[in-house]
Amino acid sequence: MKIGFVGLGHMGAPMALNLLKAGHTVAVFDLSASAMQTLAEAGAQKAASAKAAASGAECVITMLPAAAHVRSVLTAEDGVLAGIAKGVTIIDSSTIDPASVKEFAKLAAAQGNAFVDAPVSGGTGGAAAGTLTFMVGGSAEHYESVKPVLSGMGKNIVHCGETGTGQVAKICNNLVLGVTMAGVAEAMALGEALGIDPKVLGGIMNTSTGRCWSSDTYNPYPGVIETAPSSRGYTGGFGTDLMLKDLGLATDAAKGVHQPAYMGALAQQLYQAMSSHGDGKLDFSAIIKLYRGEKG
Amino acid sequence: MKIGFVGLGHMGAPMALNLLKAGHTVAVFDLSASAMQTLAEAGAQKAASAKAAASGAECVITMLPAAAHVRSVLTAEDGVLAGIAKGVTIIDSSTIDPASVKEFAKLAAAQGNAFVDAPVSGGTGGAAAGTLTFMVGGSAEHYESVKPVLSGMGKNIVHCGETGTGQVAKICNNLVLGVTMAGVAEAMALGEALGIDPKVLGGIMNTSTGRCWSSDTYNPYPGVIETAPSSRGYTGGFGTDLMLKDLGLATDAAKGVHQPAYMGALAQQLYQAMSSHGDGKLDFSAIIKLYRGEKG
Amino acid sequence: MKIGFVGLGHMGAPMALNLLKAGHTVAVFDLSASAMQTLAEAGAQKAASAKAAASGAECVITMLPAAAHVRSVLTAEDGVLAGIAKGVTIIDSSTIDPASVKEFAKLAAAQGNAFVDAPVSGGTGGAAAGTLTFMVGGSAEHYESVKPVLSGMGKNIVHCGETGTGQVAKICNNLVLGVTMAGVAEAMALGEALGIDPKVLGGIMNTSTGRCWSSDTYNPYPGVIETAPSSRGYTGGFGTDLMLKDLGLATDAAKGVHQPAYMGALAQQLYQAMSSHGDGKLDFSAIIKLYRGEKG
Amino acid sequence: MKIGFVGLGHMGAPMALNLLKAGHTVAVFDLSASAMQTLAEAGAQKAASAKAAASGAECVITMLPAAAHVRSVLTAEDGVLAGIAKGVTIIDSSTIDPASVKEFAKLAAAQGNAFVDAPVSGGTGGAAAGTLTFMVGGSAEHYESVKPVLSGMGKNIVHCGETGTGQVAKICNNLVLGVTMAGVAEAMALGEALGIDPKVLGGIMNTSTGRCWSSDTYNPYPGVIETAPSSRGYTGGFGTDLMLKDLGLATDAAKGVHQPAYMGALAQQLYQAMSSHGDGKLDFSAIIKLYRGEKG
Repeated sequence: MKIGFVGLGHMGAPMALNLLKAGHTVAVFDLSASAMQTLAEAGAQKAASAKAAASGAECVITMLPAAAHVRSVLTAEDGVLAGIAKGVTIIDSSTIDPASVKEFAKLAAAQGNAFVDAPVSGGTGGAAAGTLTFMVGGSAEHYESVKPVLSGMGKNIVHCGETGTGQVAKICNNLVLGVTMAGVAEAMALGEALGIDPKVLGGIMNTSTGRCWSSDTYNPYPGVIETAPSSRGYTGGFGTDLMLKDLGLATDAAKGVHQPAYMGALAQQLYQAMSSHGDGKLDFSAIIKLYRGEKG
Repeated sequence: MKIGFVGLGHMGAPMALNLLKAGHTVAVFDLSASAMQTLAEAGAQKAASAKAAASGAECVITMLPAAAHVRSVLTAEDGVLAGIAKGVTIIDSSTIDPASVKEFAKLAAAQGNAFVDAPVSGGTGGAAAGTLTFMVGGSAEHYESVKPVLSGMGKNIVHCGETGTGQVAKICNNLVLGVTMAGVAEAMALGEALGIDPKVLGGIMNTSTGRCWSSDTYNPYPGVIETAPSSRGYTGGFGTDLMLKDLGLATDAAKGVHQPAYMGALAQQLYQAMSSHGDGKLDFSAIIKLYRGEKG
Repeated sequence: MKIGFVGLGHMGAPMALNLLKAGHTVAVFDLSASAMQTLAEAGAQKAASAKAAASGAECVITMLPAAAHVRSVLTAEDGVLAGIAKGVTIIDSSTIDPASVKEFAKLAAAQGNAFVDAPVSGGTGGAAAGTLTFMVGGSAEHYESVKPVLSGMGKNIVHCGETGTGQVAKICNNLVLGVTMAGVAEAMALGEALGIDPKVLGGIMNTSTGRCWSSDTYNPYPGVIETAPSSRGYTGGFGTDLMLKDLGLATDAAKGVHQPAYMGALAQQLYQAMSSHGDGKLDFSAIIKLYRGEKG
Repeated sequence: MKIGFVGLGHMGAPMALNLLKAGHTVAVFDLSASAMQTLAEAGAQKAASAKAAASGAECVITMLPAAAHVRSVLTAEDGVLAGIAKGVTIIDSSTIDPASVKEFAKLAAAQGNAFVDAPVSGGTGGAAAGTLTFMVGGSAEHYESVKPVLSGMGKNIVHCGETGTGQVAKICNNLVLGVTMAGVAEAMALGEALGIDPKVLGGIMNTSTGRCWSSDTYNPYPGVIETAPSSRGYTGGFGTDLMLKDLGLATDAAKGVHQPAYMGALAQQLYQAMSSHGDGKLDFSAIIKLYRGEKG
């Protein structure tokens, strides 16, 4: 299949590589020449613009930092919508707000293109290994049509519902993630202050009703889970500033539908405090520092 | 073994029954004559006071609503400490604050008795089935000595560390539980408002980083988990007022050691709002009503 | 002076009227024909577009709901920047985010115009009476130049500092306002539940350290302050949805500079809960309903 | 008048001194011999116990750190209730929870004594100057009877309602105080980060709707109010740990009546974070450090 791919960052580059490995023809575009070069050496065609990457493609994939970038990549004079053929589907794997998805889907539909949201979970590790989960928003028909392409980059291709629901699934999941991590950090630090061995406490939680991914897989207390970022200085995981982006999307979406998001908004402020202390690049489980008196 | 058992409420009664089934001789005391009668019919001896229940016992177990009751049962003129023989261990399975545990342990030690905290998880269902988890605080020696007795009432007998750490484990776990449930409720209601099918959202969370007991076992959205209280009108689970008691213990303990408990304190207020609406007897997962506009 | 005025809503219309009364020549533009007609009857010139209103003006004033409207009114083909003469100052009295102010100031500067932010406080009452407070962001020179115009619409013309600081002053003040009102509502409802007469409690607060505008002028408990919206069914004051807009600007601005905004973010969720109950049009002091069990 | 006075701490000592200056005969008791000596040198009689201080007194005043101390001073074998004559009124000026007040009033009534709660505001400065405010809970008759005594120590003697309402007034006022200070600190730090001069911002707030005691009298930003603790290194004001005590009373009282206390509980955690950083002795306005990145 002939695929146009725009956005070769930490996630996009390995995703595009996997498409090449899966046997697709891939035309790539990114503002970074070195990112383009790396992909070209792996067999991709360098496109001069998003428009060029989209020209002649049977499918276009975008993987960008925020909605503003997606808007620009789609609607610029040399953007995707200027180059894409009628009937071709655009898959956006960026994490953006559901309202923007609907706006972009409308723009695409106006010229005969489908726009499917397919944000991912699994991080850079999953992107490299081709084991990402894709949360797909679009009609059942579009879901079926993009599934084969996404299968080249991920393991779990989940249909979430109509356009935008892929993003809804992503931000609601990450809202829970941000809240549970803050809660586990608070409880682990409290337990430590009250004199229980953190490993014992972690063990009890993980076999009881406090059990959660933030405790049994990613426990923020160093040494409780050997493979967690906390056991290697909070490096190499899911950065605090990325969690902040997702909590920002969640609380903004809640604002848009007049829903209170008490827990998410509070967790957001705590991660913001971390970021203001200069810890924005650490794994988000470093939030436990706010409770252990190291910072904050 | 000859056991004295004080406190025959929703938890204590089935626990004492299981001790009888395990072949122990049990002398029971409770202020409720009917609770006493039920146990007597199952083979227990009715004691006229906590002191009488403790007299001649090789082990005394207390299961009471709060620290004030434990204090009174221990120290009253006709209380446990007045009747118990030197060297006999007192096991308190009530959920109370760690500071009170230490105070009671001192009182007991002053007259040659050990006081072991062993709060439980598993609810009335686990109490009846004899599948409770006991979180035991005390020396390794005391842990070994109480294990055989507790095994008659539970499946998991976990040693948490020194005196008081059983309570620490319990309240830290329930702090996480109260926070994750509030977070999951917030996210499920937000997802619904943003147009995703709650069952789809629950399914994604439960296989992703939002995974937690509050989502995969006790999901607050009706119908997502058929066996959860939410699927039967929020009845028959873990009452909101009980969650409030445990969050109160957690935030009070945090106050005592000058630790902030941001997430727990906020969750506590949300459950308090539920309780103020008259929903204190509903399962705590009914907190989702605060977000779904039914109440609150 | 010849003034172009764009935006004739609840605030803009009475402000433009006051400029007419002050003897200025005013060319007005609004999408609402009836709003235009009302001003025309009072002596204003109807302009066919924002561009037309700006043409030939010695000063242009915009008063719009949000940054998106300001952007559009400035940059559209028939917008202000297309019609304004070089050297003329644009005064924006909308309440928008400081970052957008800086962006607009750059656009204006690029074609030789100054852009001064001058958001107001005082509400529709102050707009009608000409007693608004203007918080002006811009150089000392620009402040001096706009002061005479603003004096036609307000009583207090305060220089806050460089471009954007007018908005900073406005949103920081309203952050405090949103927080103090929530705090006063919480305390008044708590006092009532604990058995004190709310009027007595209000009286004590207002002569003690709890004293604040939200208590001594706008007390949320009905009857404590006879002239407050709470004493007339929470009508006719500062709408909850407007407070939500301002708290949204404050927490967004905090996000932008990586500052935690714990109290503001929590208050925002509480007002959001009100709005989700259908109370978004009530005065924001109706937040006390969340605490008094009437709703929420 | 012959007065018994128990509790000669930072507040009690200057209060008792003012009673002496007002011409009363005062028998004092405190566990600190040096505190007793200071008062004796000013003309007081040293009593050997609380009981002795109460013996023969026409009025007994207690000024103690917490409810547990009041309980002990009242009910101990050598306590006030053992020494006081029938019909004599006990005035408790400690800040304690309203529920304990009712319990103590019952104990006193059982032996024919009235117990009036009369907590104060005004701090050690007001205690020395005799300008305290007393918030009095009790019948109108009791209020009239204690007014002359209290007038010797304070300027404002306010009748709040029935027994316990003095404490209700105190903790509700301080709930607002703790919340507004946190809100002002948050807004001042945000304004600074966004580039406005804190003095300008403070000036605008203090003439606008953000106006409050925490801003116009006690502004947490150094230099905005020259006489505030923030302008002298956060020394000599109202200590953070005292604010924590009062917020603890407020949130506990809210728990007791099933009222949510969202804002108060969050503020409490923020002051707790300060305290955990070792700042518990600083004036509570030092909470702004949590926002300015100095600590926390």
